[in-house]
Formats: sequence, C-alpha cells, structure tokens
Amino acid sequence: MRVDVALTPSEFAGASLAGGAALVIDVLRASTSVVAACAAGCRQVIPVADAEAARARARAFPGGGALLAGEQGGEPIPGFDLGNSPMEYIPERVRGRTIILTTTNGTAAMIAARAAAAAGVAALTNLTAAARWAAAQGRDVTLLCAGEKGRFSLEDAVCAGLLVDRLTGAGEAIEVSDAAMAARRVGQYYLADLSRLLDDSAWARKLDRAGRAADLRACLALASVDAVPVLADGAVVPGVPCGPPAAQPEARR
Amino acid sequence: MRVDVALTPSEFAGASLAGGAALVIDVLRASTSVVAACAAGCRQVIPVADAEAARARARAFPGGGALLAGEQGGEPIPGFDLGNSPMEYIPERVRGRTIILTTTNGTAAMIAARAAAAAGVAALTNLTAAARWAAAQGRDVTLLCAGEKGRFSLEDAVCAGLLVDRLTGAGEAIEVSDAAMAARRVGQYYLADLSRLLDDSAWARKLDRAGRAADLRACLALASVDAVPVLADGAVVPGVPCGPPAAQPEARR
Repeated sequence: MRVDVALTPSEFAGASLAGGAALVIDVLRASTSVVAACAAGCRQVIPVADAEAARARARAFPGGGALLAGEQGGEPIPGFDLGNSPMEYIPERVRGRTIILTTTNGTAAMIAARAAAAAGVAALTNLTAAARWAAAQGRDVTLLCAGEKGRFSLEDAVCAGLLVDRLTGAGEAIEVSDAAMAARRVGQYYLADLSRLLDDSAWARKLDRAGRAADLRACLALASVDAVPVLADGAVVPGVPCGPPAAQPEARR
Repeated sequence: MRVDVALTPSEFAGASLAGGAALVIDVLRASTSVVAACAAGCRQVIPVADAEAARARARAFPGGGALLAGEQGGEPIPGFDLGNSPMEYIPERVRGRTIILTTTNGTAAMIAARAAAAAGVAALTNLTAAARWAAAQGRDVTLLCAGEKGRFSLEDAVCAGLLVDRLTGAGEAIEVSDAAMAARRVGQYYLADLSRLLDDSAWARKLDRAGRAADLRACLALASVDAVPVLADGAVVPGVPCGPPAAQPEARR
C-alpha cells in the first residue's frame, strides 16, 4: 500500500487516482460541513461546480425536493437554503434531504475524486474514522487537499498529515511519498495544539475576522464524528460506521 | 515583506514573481552543483531546457569555449563534459568557464525564475548566505522548489522551510504564506538531524542506491558555502559574498 498527498488542486492531475482510494479534504469548511450533513442523516450531497449548476441540478428535484447549499468567497449565496457552516447541517434541517452543494474549493475536489475506485470525505472531525476507512480499502490511498483558490492550505495539509500518521502507525508496511511525509511532519507539529492553526492559517484568520469563530471551533473538533461520507455515482452519501479495519473489511468496499 | 513557497513546479505560475525576489531550490542536485560551480569560480552557468538545447547553445562558444553539463534521469549525458554531481564542479575544471547546464528539474526552475525582479540559487550548502541575500532584496520573496518531474520533493521543501525559518527569525515583521508556514514546520523537524532525509526522501534513496552517497553528503553540508549565485540576463553568475543584511545593502542588488 502506498499513501500520497496532493497538496494543491494542481497536483490532482499528477496523482494516480485510477484504481486507488481517495479522501477529499477541505477542513475550512466544505468537507467538515459534508461530514456534519451526513452525520445529521441527509440522504445525499451532490457536489456541483457553481451556483448556476446548483440551480440547474435542483430542477431535477421539483417541489423543493433538494436543498441548495454552499458559499461563494466564503459568504452564503443569495436564495440558497444553507451556507457552508457545519453548524447549519443539523438533523432538523437536513435529515432525509438531498443537498446540492457548491463551494469555492471543496466541491471541485469531490468532483475530481470521482476518478478514484473508492472515494470518501475527510475532515479533522472524522479523522479516526477516515483513517480506518482508508486502511480498509486495501488500495493505494491519495489524500486530495482542496486548498484555497488553487493554492496550498495549511489546515488541509495538517489533516492529510494526521491521516498519514494514523495510516503509517497501524503497523503495516506502507510506502509514503515525499508529499505525504512532509504533510505528516506538519500534522505532527500541529497535533500538539491544533489551535495554533488559528494563527498560522490564512483562511482561519479570515474566517475569524468574518465572525466565524464558532465555525472554526467546530472544524477543529478532532475525531468527534465516527463516520465517513463516501462517493457513490457522483454523489456523497453517509457511509457505514467504521470499526477497526480487521473486523469487517468487506462491508467497507 | 511577504514570503511564499511554491512547493512544486505547478505552483510556479500561481506564485507572484513579478517585482519580487526568487530563490531556486533543487537540493539533489542541480542547485547544489550550481552553488559549487560558482564557488569554484566559474564565469557563468547557462540553464537550458534539454540536451539538444545545450548543444545548440554551445555553438555560440566555438573552440570548446563552453562546458556541457547536466543529467537525464539522474545519469550523465553521453558526450557532456560534466554530470550533475556537485563534487565535479571544482576550480580545476570550471574556473573562468561558461557552463551550459540541463537537468531534469532544476534548470526549468532557473528559467522560470527569470520572471522575478531578482533571482538567486539556494541549496542547503549556502543556506545562511541565501537567507541573507533574500532579506537584503527588500522585496517579497518566493522560494521555488524544483521538485521531481513535476511532483513534490521533500528535500527541497526542507531547504525552503529552513530559509523561511531564517527569514522570519530575523526580527522583521514578515507575512508568511500557508505553504511557507508548512515548509517551515517541515524544515524545523529535519534540522535536528538532516540525515533523516536520507531515509525519508525518495530521490535521496534512489541516489544512494545508484552509488551516490558521497554526493548526498555533499548536498547536506549545511551552510558550508558563503555565496549566492544570482541570475543576470538569463544566466547564473557568482554573486558577491553576503555579509549581514544591514551592513552593505546596496552591494547586493
């Protein structure tokens, strides 16, 4: 098994996704919101490229059957039902519902992940479950960091690095790419005090200035959710809870 | 002043080089070899894209006036005067000479760096001088990691991170991008024992298997050279020795 990290979207093309497993990471805030939506019992999250594509896709769900959700430039989109705060994705609003989601970075990464044989969504909030899911796939694993407008995001690299750390700590002989090794060292540094990300991440500082401190706390709640949303036919659906990888490997394919 | 790191060549386009200062980093081995060549008193190093371009460029220097140098896939190029080992670039072979250089990754980064207002070449071997050179430019600084065939290289990120660490430790208020902050954390980890790179870097392992252990030792000789090669009219030329930045700032422009 090999683990690689695409540190920015421009690395997605060079990463060998075909035949492998992929995890999409957009800690602030899309993948955290998707993890929250699935934990809150939504039916599915359909990632689309932009607001126009979201409205077009919603027409396939007449009578308000789907919720429009997402952000542009970090702000809610006028006329949409939900923004991109994980705190909005609660059972009272999303249980049983289809959510059509567009965000600046995360949804593009979810769309790119369709090239993998198996794909899931990871955040700091479901770190332990995501590492178990990846280990259970029995495939090479690529961690896709959504980044910020095409550039590197510190918090996504930290999440990827902590996943590498969990995967390599499991005892199995794992080949670690240079990018995965670097992410691991970054993750190890911040694990001792994740709140250092609030100072060091440019996007975290911007969200804090925009009054989103509660969102930041929610996004840094490490391993607080024990489930991994997975891609199925292009949509993200709630995954089954992940036990230890040796227990029931077939259930997770 | 802002410091940014382009962790892979695909990030070069997104980095804002115009008006800024850039340092090209290809620790194993092109930038280390260029640092060695300049320290050994070469006249200039002309980076070109490939072996064919090197031979064409050499025709401008009739009568063997220029040395052909470089590698393809890590190996010397048939008919060339020099390979890509920093140990070949000694005064007896290169003093006063023009060197036309092509390598898999480093020379492309040197060519990309021409977009910057001021550009130099950094390696672990000239780390202290390179940090002083960058601080003395009075411009935003972008560190260009040459990587390996378009992908991320651990040793280049470590060198970039140690440069970030020196720049931010100088006391001046410096804006640090997310990528620069991550590289800094990686650099700090390896600084305690640079030989860990021999295990963790894929390219270092490959060079070691190819019998290049002496090259690896030469490339990890931290801050052993007190000079920074700089780009002038598209060629790399030996720079003046760099004192502390406050002492003689004009001499370094």
